[in-house]
Amino acid sequence: MEKSKPKTLPEIVARKEVARSRLIAVEQVDLKFSNGAERCFEKIKGSGQGAVMVIPMLDDNTLLLIREYCAGTHNYQLGFPKGLIDPGEAMQDAANRELQEEIGFAAKRWTHLHQVCMAPAFFNARMDIFVARDLYESKLQGDEPEPMEVVRWPINDYRSLLAQPDFTEARSIAALMLLRDFLEAPDDE
Amino acid sequence: MEKSKPKTLPEIVARKEVARSRLIAVEQVDLKFSNGAERCFEKIKGSGQGAVMVIPMLDDNTLLLIREYCAGTHNYQLGFPKGLIDPGEAMQDAANRELQEEIGFAAKRWTHLHQVCMAPAFFNARMDIFVARDLYESKLQGDEPEPMEVVRWPINDYRSLLAQPDFTEARSIAALMLLRDFLEAPDDE
Repeated sequence: MEKSKPKTLPEIVARKEVARSRLIAVEQVDLKFSNGAERCFEKIKGSGQGAVMVIPMLDDNTLLLIREYCAGTHNYQLGFPKGLIDPGEAMQDAANRELQEEIGFAAKRWTHLHQVCMAPAFFNARMDIFVARDLYESKLQGDEPEPMEVVRWPINDYRSLLAQPDFTEARSIAALMLLRDFLEAPDDE
Repeated sequence: MEKSKPKTLPEIVARKEVARSRLIAVEQVDLKFSNGAERCFEKIKGSGQGAVMVIPMLDDNTLLLIREYCAGTHNYQLGFPKGLIDPGEAMQDAANRELQEEIGFAAKRWTHLHQVCMAPAFFNARMDIFVARDLYESKLQGDEPEPMEVVRWPINDYRSLLAQPDFTEARSIAALMLLRDFLEAPDDE
């Protein structure tokens, strides 16, 4: 078992775009590792703006979730409101905007819970997770094709939420479990 | 707040491949929602085989993690061993193979912890998370460009793991927090 030590990043020998659609670009990267090994990887270029996820708490024991259509899996999935940060938009403003667009509430009290990424082997997709409390009704029009179903869930019944067949997104699961940990020992108050 | 009700999936009006590289294909899907709204989405076609993640427990309080180069973020990331299931391979066999390739151990005792997905809005990427116990040394040669650094972490110090700047992958965080919950009240024993 090695001890942690500084790592030498592989050298990027060449990079080129190998596919592009309207929204997605794929880049091929030729790498030479510090031991001499050479590999060719593909990575998906994101918008670079990052994204936010919001855990809205209606009261001390009630979470709000949404059920929305997901094209990747072609089904409806239960999860927390989320979305991309607009260019120039502050992170927390993006979180409050998504909350109003997707769920019809704004929040007065915000806590930054954690930053996560997704599949760093081929993505560079950062997401900041916020807890939103002291909610009040406020609706903004988003670009959603249909109104989202809003679902209330008691936090103390989180195991039944984990058991829902449509609550499977790793970032929503991480958010739920980090929230539980935070509520046991909040570090900001 | 609506009650949960059966959803009518949008109709897929048209679909076509709009980009393809050596490893990645992007499909455009034209959809008509049940309220008449029309949208065009892009989704990334995966291998369809699914993936596994393994939480190796060296003893009751020691996790094993790996630190490996990630091309998407161009840095080294700390996380649990994981990989794609080979065609025809059973899920748990894939988990035991990845464990041997990446960390040099096999396991006698396996528990299926949870199934997660990743960004279902544009991916169909399923990952099954296993807990591996009763480990014994066994090395298989994988396709890794360099040996992976293996890192031990005490479970009861999980908050310091969450605080590591290179432990940010949502699926590893979900796995860690689900493990804690499982160890508090294991449901298989």
